[in-house]
Amino acid sequence: MIDLAIVGYGNVGKGVQSAIARNPDMNLSAIITRNPERARKDFLGDFEKVTTVSCRNTIYDIKDKERWQEKNIDVAILCGGSKQDLPEQGPYFARFFNTVDSFDTHANIPEYFNKIDKIAKAKNTVSIISTGWDPGIFSLERVLADSFVPEAKHYTFWGPGVSQGHSDAIRKVEGVEDAIQFTMPIQEAIDNIRAGNHPDLKTREKHRRDCRVLVKPGVDIADYEKIKHAIKTMPNYFADYETKVTFVDRKEMDKLKQAMPHGGFVIATGTIGSNRNKAMTEYRCQWDSNPEATGNILVAHARAAYRMSKEGKTGAFTILDIPASYLSIHSKEKLLKEFM
Amino acid sequence: MIDLAIVGYGNVGKGVQSAIARNPDMNLSAIITRNPERARKDFLGDFEKVTTVSCRNTIYDIKDKERWQEKNIDVAILCGGSKQDLPEQGPYFARFFNTVDSFDTHANIPEYFNKIDKIAKAKNTVSIISTGWDPGIFSLERVLADSFVPEAKHYTFWGPGVSQGHSDAIRKVEGVEDAIQFTMPIQEAIDNIRAGNHPDLKTREKHRRDCRVLVKPGVDIADYEKIKHAIKTMPNYFADYETKVTFVDRKEMDKLKQAMPHGGFVIATGTIGSNRNKAMTEYRCQWDSNPEATGNILVAHARAAYRMSKEGKTGAFTILDIPASYLSIHSKEKLLKEFM
Repeated sequence: MIDLAIVGYGNVGKGVQSAIARNPDMNLSAIITRNPERARKDFLGDFEKVTTVSCRNTIYDIKDKERWQEKNIDVAILCGGSKQDLPEQGPYFARFFNTVDSFDTHANIPEYFNKIDKIAKAKNTVSIISTGWDPGIFSLERVLADSFVPEAKHYTFWGPGVSQGHSDAIRKVEGVEDAIQFTMPIQEAIDNIRAGNHPDLKTREKHRRDCRVLVKPGVDIADYEKIKHAIKTMPNYFADYETKVTFVDRKEMDKLKQAMPHGGFVIATGTIGSNRNKAMTEYRCQWDSNPEATGNILVAHARAAYRMSKEGKTGAFTILDIPASYLSIHSKEKLLKEFM
Repeated sequence: MIDLAIVGYGNVGKGVQSAIARNPDMNLSAIITRNPERARKDFLGDFEKVTTVSCRNTIYDIKDKERWQEKNIDVAILCGGSKQDLPEQGPYFARFFNTVDSFDTHANIPEYFNKIDKIAKAKNTVSIISTGWDPGIFSLERVLADSFVPEAKHYTFWGPGVSQGHSDAIRKVEGVEDAIQFTMPIQEAIDNIRAGNHPDLKTREKHRRDCRVLVKPGVDIADYEKIKHAIKTMPNYFADYETKVTFVDRKEMDKLKQAMPHGGFVIATGTIGSNRNKAMTEYRCQWDSNPEATGNILVAHARAAYRMSKEGKTGAFTILDIPASYLSIHSKEKLLKEFM
């Protein structure tokens, strides 16, 4: 059994918990959170049925380092947001445990990787960063396409669906109580590529971003424009897109947050051989629950982190550094016999 | 530069040569063949334009071990068929070089793996076996789907397109001069899965096999039925399918062999989380030239074999044992920055 800790008990944390319950080699050993009271309430409500552990032995305040340090934890899965949580928690927890996270600010991945790599090497831990389906599976598919089809041009589309990272980023804006962000692929662009063209697409020509925002009680109506501006100009997340911001009430927000489907695809087109024969590869995924999908992918990477650590590896890694067999619950013999 | 040898100069061997020409870190060092006379003719004819090496320094008779052993060869890419060539050549060449092959008799992969693994470990070489797009990329995609979606059910479809392995298998039948085999996916099955069903499909419910065969000059018409029977009852290749055999003349055969498109997909459906939310992943590829696609994939794996060997690894490996970054021509920094 691999003993796991969940750090951060929001949507992704709960997705990880439900994924642990469906992976028979995994055990939930601790939930580490800034808000244990709320986690206890959530835990008893929704997840009792998918776990055999009691919340009493499982939920720790992130400040109680002395207590959670004593738990059997093979891998800590960091489920916080990329904007404010992970830049702090990634380096912090890599000092204590093997970690897995879904840091998804693409532009800052090299810097984040190097920072964690130094700490993990010094502390003899393994940290798999930036995994999930993008970055994560999609990163892998982009590299495979590029490796197998020389000079392939690859395109990535997301949605329609809810982006946790972007919803989370909006929630950090002053005056925002809650938010949900829908990523919308621009169909004209997809049609153009599938017709065999290789357009140079700007960021804003591929996706739109549709934000629904609930403001904090007491926020003055005059500040709504400020919130809108703060979202629309946020670098990495919204500044490069056509972004629409709509304010909604609690009832509407709760309705929007019930289902969190997402998906997307990586399509690559290029040519092979001396006669420039056409070649095309495409990976698609469709998840009726995005946080549960991310949870499953994180848990499979926790398995890999555990195995790599047992082998004596240390430092930061991404999905590009990990053989697929490390992600699988199956034995080498079974993989050779049934999956090859 | 990575110095490569091509062993076997048929369709796949030529596909590898054209792939080497498009990978700037690769050099063609030797072609090793049972029929150097024919290779010299082919080489000068079709491939002069995509390579800078002369055939005089490159083409060796497979029997001239003393000569090809002296060449700088980092990796030998074995391009023979799985039915008769590779079971002999795989173990043989693993004694001398790092090797990559596309052994594609799925049922015999574990046995082939173990045999090569022993030799490669004893001789301190790296052998990557059974790569291409299936087995190969598709094997990887099946494992990824299974790892990320618990209890996912995965389906693999091929075609419509020409299978090199199956064409090659027919060519080994006594009395057969040349052959081409078209793999045809059965559309009803695909529609059924895409509609969200999880049928249990028998082998023959997924694909049909359409064989066009040219008999050797002098074969008696009375033996045609024997040839047909030998093909239709061939284990692993045809026995489990609805197989159609049509005899054609040289002109028709040459026409059929001009283009060799192929493709297929791996689709996996399952559920995630405690509420059994639906999840679907799909990988598709479409190649206008199947041997050139296989050639490109083999060359990317030769890069991985070279790197693994430099690291001191030995033994047999499959795509499941190889991190994607090992397949890529790009630096770690570039992958982190541009592909994650």
